[in-house]
Amino acid sequence: MKFDLEATDSKCNARAGTLHTAHGKIETPIFMPVGTIATVKGVHQHELHNDIKAQIILGNTYHLYLRPGTDILEKAGGLHKFNGFNKPMLTDSGGYQVFSLSHRRKIKEEGATFSSHIDGSKHLFTPENVMDVQRKIGADIIMAFDECTPYPCDYKYAKRSMHMTHRWLKRCINRFNATDPLYGYEQALFPIVQGSVYKDLRKQSAEAIASHDCIGNAIGGLSVGEPHEDMYEMTDIVCSILPKEKPRYLMGVGTPVNILECIALGIDMFDCVLPTRNARHGLIYTREGKINIKNAKWKDDFSPLDPDATNETSRFYTKAYVRHLFQSKELLGPQITSIHNLAFYLWLTGEARKHIKAGDFLKWKNEMVSKLDRRL
Amino acid sequence: MKFDLEATDSKCNARAGTLHTAHGKIETPIFMPVGTIATVKGVHQHELHNDIKAQIILGNTYHLYLRPGTDILEKAGGLHKFNGFNKPMLTDSGGYQVFSLSHRRKIKEEGATFSSHIDGSKHLFTPENVMDVQRKIGADIIMAFDECTPYPCDYKYAKRSMHMTHRWLKRCINRFNATDPLYGYEQALFPIVQGSVYKDLRKQSAEAIASHDCIGNAIGGLSVGEPHEDMYEMTDIVCSILPKEKPRYLMGVGTPVNILECIALGIDMFDCVLPTRNARHGLIYTREGKINIKNAKWKDDFSPLDPDATNETSRFYTKAYVRHLFQSKELLGPQITSIHNLAFYLWLTGEARKHIKAGDFLKWKNEMVSKLDRRL
Repeated sequence: MKFDLEATDSKCNARAGTLHTAHGKIETPIFMPVGTIATVKGVHQHELHNDIKAQIILGNTYHLYLRPGTDILEKAGGLHKFNGFNKPMLTDSGGYQVFSLSHRRKIKEEGATFSSHIDGSKHLFTPENVMDVQRKIGADIIMAFDECTPYPCDYKYAKRSMHMTHRWLKRCINRFNATDPLYGYEQALFPIVQGSVYKDLRKQSAEAIASHDCIGNAIGGLSVGEPHEDMYEMTDIVCSILPKEKPRYLMGVGTPVNILECIALGIDMFDCVLPTRNARHGLIYTREGKINIKNAKWKDDFSPLDPDATNETSRFYTKAYVRHLFQSKELLGPQITSIHNLAFYLWLTGEARKHIKAGDFLKWKNEMVSKLDRRL
Repeated sequence: MKFDLEATDSKCNARAGTLHTAHGKIETPIFMPVGTIATVKGVHQHELHNDIKAQIILGNTYHLYLRPGTDILEKAGGLHKFNGFNKPMLTDSGGYQVFSLSHRRKIKEEGATFSSHIDGSKHLFTPENVMDVQRKIGADIIMAFDECTPYPCDYKYAKRSMHMTHRWLKRCINRFNATDPLYGYEQALFPIVQGSVYKDLRKQSAEAIASHDCIGNAIGGLSVGEPHEDMYEMTDIVCSILPKEKPRYLMGVGTPVNILECIALGIDMFDCVLPTRNARHGLIYTREGKINIKNAKWKDDFSPLDPDATNETSRFYTKAYVRHLFQSKELLGPQITSIHNLAFYLWLTGEARKHIKAGDFLKWKNEMVSKLDRRL
């Protein structure tokens, strides 16, 4: 796996690059649609390919481990064969999911015990077995097992947790290096910077993570409820330390504005459930602002859902029709808006890339930011 | 609108023909997917066109009248413009829906008063205003307003109701003839034979309906709970009376076996919610029998959902993956199985047509019937 840094903006830290994987290339900056349980909710695989133009999607180790289970995924020949998505995939380590189980889990040095949200059954995730599970799932990029601290989080806890995440990382790397991919193609392990909203911890963590010289690096523990200013400040500090020649992945971020601001700070990869979750509630993003498609004002607006969209679905269906589908609680409503929002996010990161390469990213970004949060 | 009868089987009453409409031709026998509220549940319009190969879909007057309402549909320029499906459409008259409201409606000679299932508001459907509503919806084929009798239904009620349906038909035809299509293309009115499961009533009704010399004729009040033998017997009697040179539509039927048997009796057009409703519960049809995709036996079956399918979706996704989607209650599961079942129904009527034209329909039909109800 190889990352080519192709352009860096002269007025900010935005970068454009290409990450080459066994399942194809990823042109950064990039948004990665979330396919939690081996499916991006409501979206067909060919729609991800053709209409949304997704270059990489996510899976969740916690969910896939519970259902369908690693035995089924191994028999299938890995996640790509299982769900038929033959482009790059990334799996998170389960760290975030396990820690969001709150009262259903216990964290010790060995690992995290948790009870399944499906049937209450008890499980143990350790840095070692999470590597093994991700080998069996077979994503191109796999994540280190970390503790994702909540917000707010007191300094003492954040510091202790960060150190444990660093110790877990060493165990992850040892196991990763001692095992081979199961399906004949390379997997890359990305470590995760933690440290809550504390500058000194983030700095320390970024240095520790960078020292491992992994193929790419990730920033975790943000977009968990902290003010956006904190998110940007932490991202900025970490980006100033992580190596420039490696891709940087900001986990779980965010709104379209968050994404543009963090691209400006030097982030290359993003994932977030926001576009699909909001889509299912009828909130759609456009380059002119946000639309709540359930509002009565759209009931006789027969213009396309987004006349400016570059994808077919958003130009085909009208606002009035999609509003009607939501009013009638019809499945097709969320299907359409999910495609729309994902296509919009992919358009947004694709445009960012173009402007970085053209050298006018900052101006474009500032113009976009002023419009994206408007309510139409 | 014009119907060309192209072939009739020498050993049974199966027929093949083509119905020409302003939105394209319909090759019969044909199955018409049900798009109740301007959407076939969980299915994109381009999927209906390209993968399912639907030639005509249904809409429901009752539902469309309540939501989005005729004002919106009229502003849109009719249902085709509203939902973007540019092939032929048919709307039922609301008769079936109104009568299935049971305690929420009252039937008088004037028409049927009912309260909306959405907000309880009171409405009156008459033969006249149902014609007006269907003019505003703008389907290519519209249905007469009838009373659909329940099963069982005593002879006296069935007879009285049938006569009222005949009187309503005259009022429908008068209003239909006194009004023009709103969107510049022809609409055809199909009358409906009633008479419950009584041979003499069905005969009488078929003669009354045939006497109006409409472009096509329909059979209602079957597939409402009566034994299949009764359905076939009534269909046979009615088909022996309805004119041969006009298309015959058996409303609300049915299972794949029902459809093949009724094609053999002389039916040309079918609609039913069964393929999509069953799909949403994980029941799929194949030419070798039925599959409950939720069964554990499919959990590691990585063969295509239906390796014999002529459509892409059914060959792309595996049984194990679709089973996983249903286990995980993921939207994509019902999306895939809905496409699959509709494509199967369209394949089935398409094959029937081929075999009628080839002269070996009866042999093929009997072979298929012996397999279709098996549980795989």
